[in-house]
Amino acid sequence: MRFGLFGGATARRGQVTGDSQGYQGLVDIALEVEDLGYHSLFLVEHHFSGTGQLSASLNMLSYLAALTKKIRLGTAVTVLPWHNPVLLAEQAASVDVLSGGRLDFGVGKGYRDIEYHGFNIDRDEALDMYDESMEVILKSWTSEERFDHKGKYWQFNDILVEPPTVQTPHPPFWTAAGTDESIARVAKSGFNVLFDNFASLERTAERMQVWRDTCTEIGRPFDPMQVGLTRWVNITNTPEEYEAAVEARERGVARMFGKYGALPGQKSGQNSRKTQPATFADPDMSMDALIGSPDQIIDRLSLLESMGFEYLLILMPDSIEPLRRFAQEVMPAFQNRTANAAQ
Amino acid sequence: MRFGLFGGATARRGQVTGDSQGYQGLVDIALEVEDLGYHSLFLVEHHFSGTGQLSASLNMLSYLAALTKKIRLGTAVTVLPWHNPVLLAEQAASVDVLSGGRLDFGVGKGYRDIEYHGFNIDRDEALDMYDESMEVILKSWTSEERFDHKGKYWQFNDILVEPPTVQTPHPPFWTAAGTDESIARVAKSGFNVLFDNFASLERTAERMQVWRDTCTEIGRPFDPMQVGLTRWVNITNTPEEYEAAVEARERGVARMFGKYGALPGQKSGQNSRKTQPATFADPDMSMDALIGSPDQIIDRLSLLESMGFEYLLILMPDSIEPLRRFAQEVMPAFQNRTANAAQ
Repeated sequence: MRFGLFGGATARRGQVTGDSQGYQGLVDIALEVEDLGYHSLFLVEHHFSGTGQLSASLNMLSYLAALTKKIRLGTAVTVLPWHNPVLLAEQAASVDVLSGGRLDFGVGKGYRDIEYHGFNIDRDEALDMYDESMEVILKSWTSEERFDHKGKYWQFNDILVEPPTVQTPHPPFWTAAGTDESIARVAKSGFNVLFDNFASLERTAERMQVWRDTCTEIGRPFDPMQVGLTRWVNITNTPEEYEAAVEARERGVARMFGKYGALPGQKSGQNSRKTQPATFADPDMSMDALIGSPDQIIDRLSLLESMGFEYLLILMPDSIEPLRRFAQEVMPAFQNRTANAAQ
Repeated sequence: MRFGLFGGATARRGQVTGDSQGYQGLVDIALEVEDLGYHSLFLVEHHFSGTGQLSASLNMLSYLAALTKKIRLGTAVTVLPWHNPVLLAEQAASVDVLSGGRLDFGVGKGYRDIEYHGFNIDRDEALDMYDESMEVILKSWTSEERFDHKGKYWQFNDILVEPPTVQTPHPPFWTAAGTDESIARVAKSGFNVLFDNFASLERTAERMQVWRDTCTEIGRPFDPMQVGLTRWVNITNTPEEYEAAVEARERGVARMFGKYGALPGQKSGQNSRKTQPATFADPDMSMDALIGSPDQIIDRLSLLESMGFEYLLILMPDSIEPLRRFAQEVMPAFQNRTANAAQ
């Protein structure tokens, strides 16, 4: 099994005063998790939230590229309709060059109304823009000859896009998918897939089944390392800690859904708990997050593993401590028992 | 007197294979020049040249921010019409945060036809786009409140742009200017100015005079550290080396002017030599580059200093060696004799 991280950082107005402050927490975590054996770090891109969110994830990844050696550097996701696809291809390729070929390029259409409204882009056009942008990025990264692009949203004349990427033919593409239709579409596209951290265990199992069925149907070999499952993780020692963690998680999810709406392919009530703590024998199928003692989390991960999940992306906590505990008390249980985790 | 660097890097298709390769030369130079006492590193932004030029300068600066402590990190220049101004404000602010407030933000309108054609932008619109973009960037960096922007080229609704910059109210703006009119306009705008490396010594003196006259006229205090003079430098030991260096420089300039045209405010023949080597007593006023023995270069720099220049940006050479020699054999002559070089 392989473990990575998924998240962002905050640099709020009025709180940024010195050397990398505001982002320093994320930088410190990134450096330590590489040593702890985490495989990847995927960073979000968001805009206009007013919470000091990470907006320029490729710049943060460029910075981290200089300080790390092995960890994969990902976006989750870069929202294509916001960006000029040629500038984006140049920026992402630069991260690939600067990191020695460690970019995992997560792309998507976004889901927050305040972002579409902020950029003055009609959300109904998102899919068309996404498709056109992907076409330009792929051509930018693979064409050895100058080319033109005469699209509906972007036009380019006689261009050759540089620098070239280090990974060939290009960095892996990742994209989020939630509905059965979009999961099948991603499987058919050749991209890797990211599943969100809000869906219940039951819905998560269904999603994996759709992915595997589609792979079988189209003859794509099933590679568990092409399926990233994001999860909120919290190691608790006592029933009181467990209760507090579950409540904190529920409050956080409710706040986020209230502000931005539910993600595609799930309902907002779907993640509420019925029974807990979950056990391997009697798991709480409605719960999304991994909360409990190390043994309980190992049980839950074993259940996910039995569904085919071998690549877990942990939602970035506020401090490094939970990631240290996870690395020390959970990760060892999954070493040397995985078919595809090498690399 | 203060010394910085100005230039780029190349990562050509087919030559990028490993860890930061293609850009590694620039990275190595950046790390060493910081220790050698250079004050700044300004990076170009270009596109579609086919020579593997640096296209995503803010990503390279993010990378360098992680590996350096003191050196100022600049763009020279970011061409505003290519970029979404909000994304650009976010990216540049991120560099400012990641570098602890070391960004010098050079902005411009660009001058290469292949870039305007490539981005499918009408060059006649460049100035209007530049002005509108500057308005958005300034507002993005300074507004504490959400704002709308309803422009001709870009529209944004109810946005608050983050992260905030570390430098307040924002990083210094630099821009290139060549004609008398544009030099006066920059002086009046409050920006700092960059003079190109192609103009003759005579024309360079005229430019400084226009800058100083305008400052006097509008009551802007003259600060020599707000005037960056870019120059090609080559230390030579023998008459043969001198001849070869002058010829190499002339070939390089002719090739560039042939490909992209002359820069504004000069003629392409203006930099051809009449007599050389130049001496302090009898300088070759037609020559642009600083070529000669350390003593001859010190003489030439003294002449520039007497015109008011105290901030020299050396055009990036292919290797570190000339920058080492310059730091060891030329820079010491200008230490402890400058009014304004302290930071």
